[in-house]
Amino acid sequence: MTSHTIAPVVPARGRLRPLGIDEVRIDDGFWAERQRVNGTNTLAHIEAKLESEGWLPNFDLAAAGTLPQGRRGREFADSEVYKYLEALAWEIGRTGDEDLEQRFRAIVARVAAAQEDDGYLNTRFGRPDQGARWSDLEWGHELYCLGHLFQAAVARGRTRPDADDGLLQVAVRAADLVCREFGSDGRDAICGHAEVEVGLAELARLTGDRRYLDQAALFVQRHGRRTLADIGFGRSYYQDDVPVRDADVLRGHAVRANYLSSAAVDVAVDAADADLLDTLRSQWRRTVERRTYVTGGQGAHHSDEAFGEDWELPPDRAYSETCAGIGSIMFSWRLLLADGGPQYADLIERTLFNVVATSPAPDGRAFYYANTLHQRVPAQPADPDATSPRAQSSLRAPWFEVSCCPPNVARTFASLAAYLATADDDGVQLHQYASASVRTTLPDGTVAAFRVSTAYPADGRIRVTVVEDGEWTLTLRVPAWATGAVVRFGSEDSADAAPGSFALRRAFRAGDVVELDLPVAPRVTAPDPHVDAVRGCVVVERGPEVLALESVDFGADVAEAVLTADPVEVDGRVSAEVRRRDTGESADVALVPYHSWAQRGPSTMRVWLPTS
Amino acid sequence: MTSHTIAPVVPARGRLRPLGIDEVRIDDGFWAERQRVNGTNTLAHIEAKLESEGWLPNFDLAAAGTLPQGRRGREFADSEVYKYLEALAWEIGRTGDEDLEQRFRAIVARVAAAQEDDGYLNTRFGRPDQGARWSDLEWGHELYCLGHLFQAAVARGRTRPDADDGLLQVAVRAADLVCREFGSDGRDAICGHAEVEVGLAELARLTGDRRYLDQAALFVQRHGRRTLADIGFGRSYYQDDVPVRDADVLRGHAVRANYLSSAAVDVAVDAADADLLDTLRSQWRRTVERRTYVTGGQGAHHSDEAFGEDWELPPDRAYSETCAGIGSIMFSWRLLLADGGPQYADLIERTLFNVVATSPAPDGRAFYYANTLHQRVPAQPADPDATSPRAQSSLRAPWFEVSCCPPNVARTFASLAAYLATADDDGVQLHQYASASVRTTLPDGTVAAFRVSTAYPADGRIRVTVVEDGEWTLTLRVPAWATGAVVRFGSEDSADAAPGSFALRRAFRAGDVVELDLPVAPRVTAPDPHVDAVRGCVVVERGPEVLALESVDFGADVAEAVLTADPVEVDGRVSAEVRRRDTGESADVALVPYHSWAQRGPSTMRVWLPTS
Repeated sequence: MTSHTIAPVVPARGRLRPLGIDEVRIDDGFWAERQRVNGTNTLAHIEAKLESEGWLPNFDLAAAGTLPQGRRGREFADSEVYKYLEALAWEIGRTGDEDLEQRFRAIVARVAAAQEDDGYLNTRFGRPDQGARWSDLEWGHELYCLGHLFQAAVARGRTRPDADDGLLQVAVRAADLVCREFGSDGRDAICGHAEVEVGLAELARLTGDRRYLDQAALFVQRHGRRTLADIGFGRSYYQDDVPVRDADVLRGHAVRANYLSSAAVDVAVDAADADLLDTLRSQWRRTVERRTYVTGGQGAHHSDEAFGEDWELPPDRAYSETCAGIGSIMFSWRLLLADGGPQYADLIERTLFNVVATSPAPDGRAFYYANTLHQRVPAQPADPDATSPRAQSSLRAPWFEVSCCPPNVARTFASLAAYLATADDDGVQLHQYASASVRTTLPDGTVAAFRVSTAYPADGRIRVTVVEDGEWTLTLRVPAWATGAVVRFGSEDSADAAPGSFALRRAFRAGDVVELDLPVAPRVTAPDPHVDAVRGCVVVERGPEVLALESVDFGADVAEAVLTADPVEVDGRVSAEVRRRDTGESADVALVPYHSWAQRGPSTMRVWLPTS
Repeated sequence: MTSHTIAPVVPARGRLRPLGIDEVRIDDGFWAERQRVNGTNTLAHIEAKLESEGWLPNFDLAAAGTLPQGRRGREFADSEVYKYLEALAWEIGRTGDEDLEQRFRAIVARVAAAQEDDGYLNTRFGRPDQGARWSDLEWGHELYCLGHLFQAAVARGRTRPDADDGLLQVAVRAADLVCREFGSDGRDAICGHAEVEVGLAELARLTGDRRYLDQAALFVQRHGRRTLADIGFGRSYYQDDVPVRDADVLRGHAVRANYLSSAAVDVAVDAADADLLDTLRSQWRRTVERRTYVTGGQGAHHSDEAFGEDWELPPDRAYSETCAGIGSIMFSWRLLLADGGPQYADLIERTLFNVVATSPAPDGRAFYYANTLHQRVPAQPADPDATSPRAQSSLRAPWFEVSCCPPNVARTFASLAAYLATADDDGVQLHQYASASVRTTLPDGTVAAFRVSTAYPADGRIRVTVVEDGEWTLTLRVPAWATGAVVRFGSEDSADAAPGSFALRRAFRAGDVVELDLPVAPRVTAPDPHVDAVRGCVVVERGPEVLALESVDFGADVAEAVLTADPVEVDGRVSAEVRRRDTGESADVALVPYHSWAQRGPSTMRVWLPTS
């Protein structure tokens, strides 16, 4: 383990060691394009909105001492600034962009100026005519906001350890205050929205200050002890119904649940708490099996943005919040580092391609907040100049009253390279496939260095070219759907690679090529028969992508569609015979990647297709 | 038409004339029991809660001039007092109970004392440190509350026209204020929750003051002109998206939508506006066909308590609010009076047996607010002493933070006799079947008088015994499901009565018997193939009752159930062969009326049963 890894999550121990964004670089293809758009368009778009919506100026008002007058935005508006800072930090680390560096420093200065002498930092509480500090733990989001501040400071501390901007000092002062206020001798309380826990854990890993990890552990442990008020949604909404250690599945608000579970893994790993880790693995398994959409999306309720019960997965009311997808990736990634199980990387892939990639428009300036799997009525374009008061009902919108998703997507894309590969004592594990360069030094000094070339997911061929001589093990994830995958190495006969992991130890020479061939031809997937909402339907998938039927291709409302034959792929175009229930006519209709839907104007759409 | 009819809805014209509760009396059976429990238990339960929750004392504080200090309850708390007054008025009219009469007068005195000099009456607005009058039309519910006051005053005015309690005067003063404030020269505005419109229309019908009807028409007409703010749920939430006249289906909040539609029928009928009535008929049709559960329940969303899109009818997330069912009955009843179409009475029957009857516990002291069609996890008993913060998730609860349903059920049960039968120039139409006595005088002076004896819905035999000589037409509704119904009259051969209406004109003699035989044997109903959420499932119905599978009968979680054979009825017990998906075992399992579910402790339950 090294504390110098430039990655969002650097546990004290674990089966796999994360690689930093200095060790893995995405060069080309599907994700490189999204990183590019994120850097060129999304970040500027977010900053403009943070200014015009008043969420950044709130800090100026705080510094000027004039709050609460003029404060704008919801309780958690500060956190969007912090998520944006985190995104900037990763992007600066990735590109060294000098303009972004100046913007970053300017915002940090404004944030720092708003911090109070004792470390408290929040524009919504604590002043005359505002709520008292920590007076509304259920809905106030004060600790939640600080958690995002800590993650931003960690991103900065790892990408620019010698920077003098002061963000880390701001975070440390705030974290010290949190430890004083909420330590074992302090308030026996938690925040209604988990997040401070992951922030504190990572701040401990960065600074080496064990108090922050203890505080994170304390917060995790306090969940489920019913210190928060009962509310209409029930205490499960903020995971204060059952202790993490006693729970058997994720429940309640899907973002909160995933953030808390992520923190619980952090705490369990660093404390070598095998029991806690076991229950989290088992919670993950049941959540994926019974409470997760085929897209990887989580959250079946609009009312409380929450998980439904087991098997409750309505496509038309799928909430599948973009941020819940990101939270699920956070949780899976931590379990992957702890365990090495390929199922975690499988879910990350599914979620990246079908939730996170679905949210932003191609220009990176509009987003889905919720990601329905069935659009019954053509949604209208969002007003490009307006802030959407709702999570759903228009096409991708430029901004929301609750606008967590844009900066959350931005920080994820900016740090995405850190989720592609890991290392252990023997070699490197490749979890996600993209054209990329990887170079890391193993504990014995061996350098594992290679390039990945692929047009994935359009094509299933992944070509790994070794760049430096060295003996090490290359482990390739074979997705669960990839039955019939094949690995070829030089002149060696190809080997069938069963779903799971395929490991190849060689004394590699520069120029050696390992090829993995994943069968990405379209396939038909039937649902678990317990899922009531999609009985009698199937979904068509292609590689890691879920496909969708859109009315703009079908020529009619998708409510009339019945799939009558298996899909075929010709020249990269997937289509299937679909019958119209109303007219009885059948036609060959294109199926498009779900993440690309609603890019050709208002349409109806469905992922699950009735077969009779 | 007579303005003396003692019924909730007395239009100026229409195909059918309502009969008052002095003309129809429910004597025995299913509904008589519910009326009895309502009178003995529910009314006292409600009054105790209105006191202990502070919603009645709010009026005392208003009278004492000490508000806003100490005010309790939500914006619409006043309305629960008015709904309760309406229920009391009908119950007093029905039974002449002297104790209830004293309670009624005591509450009216407290309400009257809170009214301001200019007629304004609301405990939540208009005082220093409260919101200004009419300052929050989106959420304030001021006009909504007054609408319920008007309905209470109408109930009292019709049941006790000579009473000196003063409620009608309170209502008239408030209605005059509404006309001054919101008349054609006043504020161009509506209330976020429709209700004042039906109240004003009926107040006009009672008092003969045309201004109130004009004001109701103005409010109806103003809907859809976007005078209310856009909100997260969209303006469709309060039917301010599209004018009533231009809409093609009910949408948005299901209670609001039905109350508004009811008022629109009132306005259309009294103004002989055939076009408006036509569009309302057509909206009703599409709403029933595409947006109504098999139970008659309406509202597919929890988040906004709203209708979903066409075909969006998830059983597990059915909101199907009790009050939306009552609103739907209000709407259907008005169309039935206007048109005479048996389809309206069919829906009323379906909704009464499967929504309204489902809400209260047998003792009338606990209620379902939402009526799911699929319970995935056994709900726990509600705390009998607590107020439930949520509409769903426990068994029937004694009271809610939003507690519209208990008093709404109470006023419906107390006035239920008024929904059984109607008259026209030729005779009497029997719409709902219950043991009852009916006596009315037709316009030509003929007396139509008869008793109805039946064990419906347990038994399908309905026996009408004429009590006085007279020539008139008896029209019997034959429900849409009752294929094979038979009518017998004395020694006459039985006649097949096709679904719809069966009319029999005779010079009846006292003692004559007409028998209607409705085939109530259990039947299997398939869903419309457009309804995605229940594809591959069927529902078992018996007469007007929807049946349900409960885990307490199944012996396992209903998630494992597959219906493998048609249901049979033996000695009044309906059962069917059900296979367990997990074990593969099959057994003969009882199916119970949906309205009786969750009366044997926590259980899982489903109405729609998978067939494979």
